[in-house]
Amino acid sequence: MHSWVDGQPVDSVPLKDRGLAYGDGLFETIAVKAGQPLLLDRHLQRLNEGCRRLALVADHGVIRSEVLAYAVALGDGILKLILTRGDSLRGYGLNPGAPVRRILQGSAPATYPPAHGVEGIRLFPCATRLAEQPLLAGLKHLNRLEQVLARAEWQDADHAEGLMLDMSGRVIEGVFSNLFLVRNGLLLTSDLSRCGVAGVMRAELLAQAQALGIPVVVADVSVEQLRQADEVFVCNSVYGIWPVRGCAAMSWPVGPLTRKLQGIVRALLDI
Amino acid sequence: MHSWVDGQPVDSVPLKDRGLAYGDGLFETIAVKAGQPLLLDRHLQRLNEGCRRLALVADHGVIRSEVLAYAVALGDGILKLILTRGDSLRGYGLNPGAPVRRILQGSAPATYPPAHGVEGIRLFPCATRLAEQPLLAGLKHLNRLEQVLARAEWQDADHAEGLMLDMSGRVIEGVFSNLFLVRNGLLLTSDLSRCGVAGVMRAELLAQAQALGIPVVVADVSVEQLRQADEVFVCNSVYGIWPVRGCAAMSWPVGPLTRKLQGIVRALLDI
Repeated sequence: MHSWVDGQPVDSVPLKDRGLAYGDGLFETIAVKAGQPLLLDRHLQRLNEGCRRLALVADHGVIRSEVLAYAVALGDGILKLILTRGDSLRGYGLNPGAPVRRILQGSAPATYPPAHGVEGIRLFPCATRLAEQPLLAGLKHLNRLEQVLARAEWQDADHAEGLMLDMSGRVIEGVFSNLFLVRNGLLLTSDLSRCGVAGVMRAELLAQAQALGIPVVVADVSVEQLRQADEVFVCNSVYGIWPVRGCAAMSWPVGPLTRKLQGIVRALLDI
Repeated sequence: MHSWVDGQPVDSVPLKDRGLAYGDGLFETIAVKAGQPLLLDRHLQRLNEGCRRLALVADHGVIRSEVLAYAVALGDGILKLILTRGDSLRGYGLNPGAPVRRILQGSAPATYPPAHGVEGIRLFPCATRLAEQPLLAGLKHLNRLEQVLARAEWQDADHAEGLMLDMSGRVIEGVFSNLFLVRNGLLLTSDLSRCGVAGVMRAELLAQAQALGIPVVVADVSVEQLRQADEVFVCNSVYGIWPVRGCAAMSWPVGPLTRKLQGIVRALLDI
């Protein structure tokens, strides 16, 4: 279906848009089922936090209404919401008169092989490292060249995702997923205060685990901890959870906590 | 004048463009005088290097011809050239079928106060640090949120540029300039292998200094070295050279080597 730009059916943005010029903006990729945007509150919460940290002044009521209306029109699929700092004057300086630009794009539902969730996947060990930038860490902003370079490292179908470390060698996340480990019944995911994208599904799983009384830790994760994990899985708000079977010479079984959380997520995403 | 997209007079890009989606591309800002793009070979050389490192396949002959033709039509002003990885499929994965998109935009000549070059400027000491990412260092790519955040740190007219350090506290560059120090007749500029943009004017000055027999060093620069410098200046390919008089509690005189290089640059830029 047609994209919307500031509520109008338009398929392009002006060349002066700061999203194009500088990657000056944020995005959300939202699964839509039967006209409902899934995990909408968490998506909008992250967007709101991103706006606050990047000093993007947006009308969040309008954004929510538009997303809801667009989702109804889309029915089933993926809704991508981009927010940019509008048009540029010259140079990096802000243009206080330029309103934020709202972009909504719809596409067909994701078509990942169901086996990814059933049998698990292998992670490609990406050589591309994540730079450490606390001012941008956690945000789903439009500066994504590191992910582009990492995703270009493998083409084979044997790897469904890639593993990314930071410059100091800490385990951070997948290219388009967050990563969780299970060890002795404890659920562990990487601290994202220096780099990484704080995923909506990650936030949901942290909340669900706490509600279930599963002990959860958010902390720095080493490759050694990853190697010694009892279970490993990746997640995002579109595909849910994929168990991870291996990465390079490391391997893990698909374990009971992964399966339990998959059940919860399946209900959430209705998949 | 009208912008060109792939040689056609168009003022927008499709929403699927990877420049918008991920900042997946490069740009050059080229001064144009009397229909001539200045320092064109150096701009295209950096663009070429960026394409090589980001695996962007472009026809550089077509790019050169278009820039030359556009500059003639522009006359006097600023030509901004953006190259993006064309349209996205879904996600970060490359779309091997999508050609690179060429965008040319023209604007009026820069209007910086002449006093910046005559009397020198003050640098705002930016709190925003540059993350260290060797894979992207030196390139003028479209992921520029750090510069956006840094430039938003000051609004007063007392500061014409900002000083940016890296995460380790090294002195790197201005927000839209490179930085040079002079100490005991030696010209020193920061190594940009971890972060920073390797400016076209920086490259030109390094070459000019060598041709003049001025000893030149490209190395890590500390704040202490900056403080103890005999002269400090910033440069870019649009405004040339601005002497730096101060930054926070540090101050420097406008010195003879700065004035000598300003003379050379003025001839190059015909300003």
